[in-house]
Amino acid sequence: MRKIILDCDPGHDDAVAIMMAAKHPDIELLGITTVAGNQVLEKTTRNALNVCQFLDIDVPVYAGCSLPLVRSQQIIAEDIHGTTGLDGPTFEPLTRKAESKHAVDFIIETLMASNGDITLVPTGPLTNIAMAMRREPKILDKIQEIVLMGGAYQLGNVTPAAEFNMAADGEAGYVVFTSGRPIVMMGLDLTRQALCYPSIVDRMDKINNRAARLFVDLMRFFNSTQKKVFGWEGGPLHDPTCIAYLIDPSCVETRSMFVEVEIRSEKCYGRTLCDYFHVTKNEPNAKVGVKLNQEKFWDIVEECIKFYN
Amino acid sequence: MRKIILDCDPGHDDAVAIMMAAKHPDIELLGITTVAGNQVLEKTTRNALNVCQFLDIDVPVYAGCSLPLVRSQQIIAEDIHGTTGLDGPTFEPLTRKAESKHAVDFIIETLMASNGDITLVPTGPLTNIAMAMRREPKILDKIQEIVLMGGAYQLGNVTPAAEFNMAADGEAGYVVFTSGRPIVMMGLDLTRQALCYPSIVDRMDKINNRAARLFVDLMRFFNSTQKKVFGWEGGPLHDPTCIAYLIDPSCVETRSMFVEVEIRSEKCYGRTLCDYFHVTKNEPNAKVGVKLNQEKFWDIVEECIKFYN
Amino acid sequence: MRKIILDCDPGHDDAVAIMMAAKHPDIELLGITTVAGNQVLEKTTRNALNVCQFLDIDVPVYAGCSLPLVRSQQIIAEDIHGTTGLDGPTFEPLTRKAESKHAVDFIIETLMASNGDITLVPTGPLTNIAMAMRREPKILDKIQEIVLMGGAYQLGNVTPAAEFNMAADGEAGYVVFTSGRPIVMMGLDLTRQALCYPSIVDRMDKINNRAARLFVDLMRFFNSTQKKVFGWEGGPLHDPTCIAYLIDPSCVETRSMFVEVEIRSEKCYGRTLCDYFHVTKNEPNAKVGVKLNQEKFWDIVEECIKFYN
Amino acid sequence: MRKIILDCDPGHDDAVAIMMAAKHPDIELLGITTVAGNQVLEKTTRNALNVCQFLDIDVPVYAGCSLPLVRSQQIIAEDIHGTTGLDGPTFEPLTRKAESKHAVDFIIETLMASNGDITLVPTGPLTNIAMAMRREPKILDKIQEIVLMGGAYQLGNVTPAAEFNMAADGEAGYVVFTSGRPIVMMGLDLTRQALCYPSIVDRMDKINNRAARLFVDLMRFFNSTQKKVFGWEGGPLHDPTCIAYLIDPSCVETRSMFVEVEIRSEKCYGRTLCDYFHVTKNEPNAKVGVKLNQEKFWDIVEECIKFYN
Repeated sequence: MRKIILDCDPGHDDAVAIMMAAKHPDIELLGITTVAGNQVLEKTTRNALNVCQFLDIDVPVYAGCSLPLVRSQQIIAEDIHGTTGLDGPTFEPLTRKAESKHAVDFIIETLMASNGDITLVPTGPLTNIAMAMRREPKILDKIQEIVLMGGAYQLGNVTPAAEFNMAADGEAGYVVFTSGRPIVMMGLDLTRQALCYPSIVDRMDKINNRAARLFVDLMRFFNSTQKKVFGWEGGPLHDPTCIAYLIDPSCVETRSMFVEVEIRSEKCYGRTLCDYFHVTKNEPNAKVGVKLNQEKFWDIVEECIKFYN
Repeated sequence: MRKIILDCDPGHDDAVAIMMAAKHPDIELLGITTVAGNQVLEKTTRNALNVCQFLDIDVPVYAGCSLPLVRSQQIIAEDIHGTTGLDGPTFEPLTRKAESKHAVDFIIETLMASNGDITLVPTGPLTNIAMAMRREPKILDKIQEIVLMGGAYQLGNVTPAAEFNMAADGEAGYVVFTSGRPIVMMGLDLTRQALCYPSIVDRMDKINNRAARLFVDLMRFFNSTQKKVFGWEGGPLHDPTCIAYLIDPSCVETRSMFVEVEIRSEKCYGRTLCDYFHVTKNEPNAKVGVKLNQEKFWDIVEECIKFYN
Repeated sequence: MRKIILDCDPGHDDAVAIMMAAKHPDIELLGITTVAGNQVLEKTTRNALNVCQFLDIDVPVYAGCSLPLVRSQQIIAEDIHGTTGLDGPTFEPLTRKAESKHAVDFIIETLMASNGDITLVPTGPLTNIAMAMRREPKILDKIQEIVLMGGAYQLGNVTPAAEFNMAADGEAGYVVFTSGRPIVMMGLDLTRQALCYPSIVDRMDKINNRAARLFVDLMRFFNSTQKKVFGWEGGPLHDPTCIAYLIDPSCVETRSMFVEVEIRSEKCYGRTLCDYFHVTKNEPNAKVGVKLNQEKFWDIVEECIKFYN
Repeated sequence: MRKIILDCDPGHDDAVAIMMAAKHPDIELLGITTVAGNQVLEKTTRNALNVCQFLDIDVPVYAGCSLPLVRSQQIIAEDIHGTTGLDGPTFEPLTRKAESKHAVDFIIETLMASNGDITLVPTGPLTNIAMAMRREPKILDKIQEIVLMGGAYQLGNVTPAAEFNMAADGEAGYVVFTSGRPIVMMGLDLTRQALCYPSIVDRMDKINNRAARLFVDLMRFFNSTQKKVFGWEGGPLHDPTCIAYLIDPSCVETRSMFVEVEIRSEKCYGRTLCDYFHVTKNEPNAKVGVKLNQEKFWDIVEECIKFYN
């Protein structure tokens, strides 16, 4: 069983990641931390709480950073996730509350109290993780692994060069990829193999429980905006690939590469420079997802949804 | 029939491009200009002359720039093309000579004397083309189209970000892509679909003429280095895709994109930022090759080789 | 009377700044926070404690960040401040201890509990200040003013472009200068007018108290390294200019400018781009020190030293 | 006697430089080449011709590059030099004509035919010089020295970082400063010591010849715009410092420094990074003007004007 902290910015795919991580017996979800990303912090935190309340997930939620590490302005993905950041489902009035502790403190304290068996799973901009690393460098030795969603070695999505999470806070990405800790990176190259076509939505719909209902409501909205922005029939279920990998690493083929995040260029800001062909001769610092076993992946998603009543 | 100037840095695939362009009835090859790239200028010029002499190609060869537009140091691709820049074949003593006119002058004078019906076909670093554009901006109106080999919207080959020609002279690439002229770009994304597997080499070997013999000698060496550097069984026949496209545009599927060349970053220097998903909202300035019809392509290569005795 | 938090990295001139701020009746020194800079965090904290113990200064000391916000490596100024970071004086065994609270928490909590009457006085890299601003953006409204030592609009000192504090953590500088809070910047242009010539050292020596003795021991060492590195007979008393300004603003002539910190360039990293001639048309965001009234300045230094027994 | 090619973009101070160089017996002015800079090429060429015609200067004028080496857009200094680029004086109808040869060809051919005794004196953007160096690298050995106006180690004038000539074509500056040839750089730090106060204008007015009349008409206009833009009573006579230095090097104190031109940053583009304190440990590649002997300088200007009838 892997102990994880899920650091996210829900976000439709983040919501599915929470859903998957919360009940699977192979994962112990120690806490959910939120960060500004797909929407402003207030909304991503609210969305995390709504998902937890709707699915009766008893895991504490900690709000984190509302601004990127350095950039003075933030980008959000309203075109993809709507004005709430989680458009589509209708939630009852929210009674769940975030903890008063700051996400960065929760991450630091939890890691420092552990014996090095905790995996960080960031699926939004890496601001909370980077700030924790700089605030308390001693946590580095306590991080077992970082399994993150972000980056791309081929095409970006918010700029030709960069994927959203890395473009939202490139400096945080830089900090994480120079941290020296083991990293597994699920970039767009991998997550674009997890397109949630209507047939998948229908398949999950048949499960017919609260989780399936939420999944379906989320994906119908998500697919509509992905179609508008990228022209695809199904949106890529980015963040759930991290959870699926934790449950069964064999569903993702990875390749070891040296990865660094570009923070000096305006045009390429946030690009994850992945040395696929080992031309720089730098030692690999990440395992990068290159091929998704789609059958296994959707089986895991289905399995996770079925853990709900 | 298309009138072209072939601006190249032979190089194995440049040599095949010369071979293809020189005798095909749909192409009028006005001149061959050389540039430093795969090897230093002296060697790329010598290689162009050797190919012309070996194949009895009666086209003038003009030597151009020996240094990139701005960078003080140049890169060469000795690991791929060997110490001569065209290792593999054995040539007789060279009697052909380059013209005394500078390549940049030839390009400017030829364009200015034309009525706008000349296509530039650069398959090396874009130094000569950029210098001509800056030296005499009036040539811009005379260029019908630029069909070039260079760049990548996915993975680079000399750095994680950049393709060789663009990394060799990013500033020249910048000049060309901001020139406002119609551009067709055959990047690595396209040319990596033109892998010259041993079965292809065998197929051409059967033609059994001088050109076929040269093709086979070139490709056997080229495939050996590509295997060493990239792990492929067949090397990508980069530059010939430009000539094939000129002969039959239907062999390449292109997509209109806005492309700009990164010259401000150290790490991403020479990256062609291709706005595949139109996220920048900039007007497309290039048609970028995305899919090669491999059957058509190899048929065209074969057809071209057969024009020799 | 101005309430201040002194955020520093002693360092010889930081030590004099502590000395000056601690006893002057116009300044209420709420706390001293330390940061990696002139030396590693452990040493700058130790040095702050040594100065407090030696001079019987009863102000809490909080250790802060040991690494810059983003850069993976740090620079230190061992050539200037020696291996301890405060070479020269001999201190008795240290019994004073730093508080257990992190400097960033102290800054946030103190500001949030205030009614907006606290001035931040950073004289080292701006890491602690930037991290506090990002960790809790609400502190911005509580900061009365930031009076900092750093930057240069003319010549840098660690690179041709940049001053040490800004080169040590350019991203932190970027955060502070885009914070929207009132900033007074004492850059090298100003502090190089505060050269502590031997005659000044002799003048302070005559005061003949513990503080004077420390001042003299500090300056004799400092002047020796400045001579070696920059060729000056007296070292610039950088950080004390901030304290002198707080005591008597008339000792520094300032000019309002728009200032931004370069973080995208390798060569110019950390340059404070000061729009002295208002050519960018951007609204000024800082008052930049341009001329020091040297007579007033040294009178203030002397006055401060005399407050000790 | 020094043989020079004056490469300029008149421009008021360029006009005075032409005036000074054309008749002084210690200088042999082989040719005047023009470049886009203070105004577009057509206008700077016209201005050079007007000055030659007005002063009866029998030196050939060659038009050069109308665009910077790489940047797609150019800046001009209309706020300083007016819509013609030489507002102020009234010229008779122009009968003098530029030569048909391109400036870059003139530079290359003249240098190649020389025995290495020619000094290049660029007082505008370095486009022509850089293009000549790249077009024919063999000229490098033939350049005796480059005495240029451009750059700044303290404050820029068109941006906080950069001086006009370097900001107009930073890449050309990069090429020249990495050329390995001996360079003398008169930057703003030096030329701002050559402020042409009204008393100076009056002094030259008394000479009472054609050249004096032109000088006075030029300076009255120039001083009015300098006052508006920078607030000075007298404008800096930038370019003439190069000519004065050639006539009597003792009028300028120089310091040997390593200088490189920033071309990677948007904000610092064109900054001349001058290693005044030798902190980079790089070998000096330029003698940079630091102190002007103003008395000598104005005496030389007066002397030059008096050579006219």
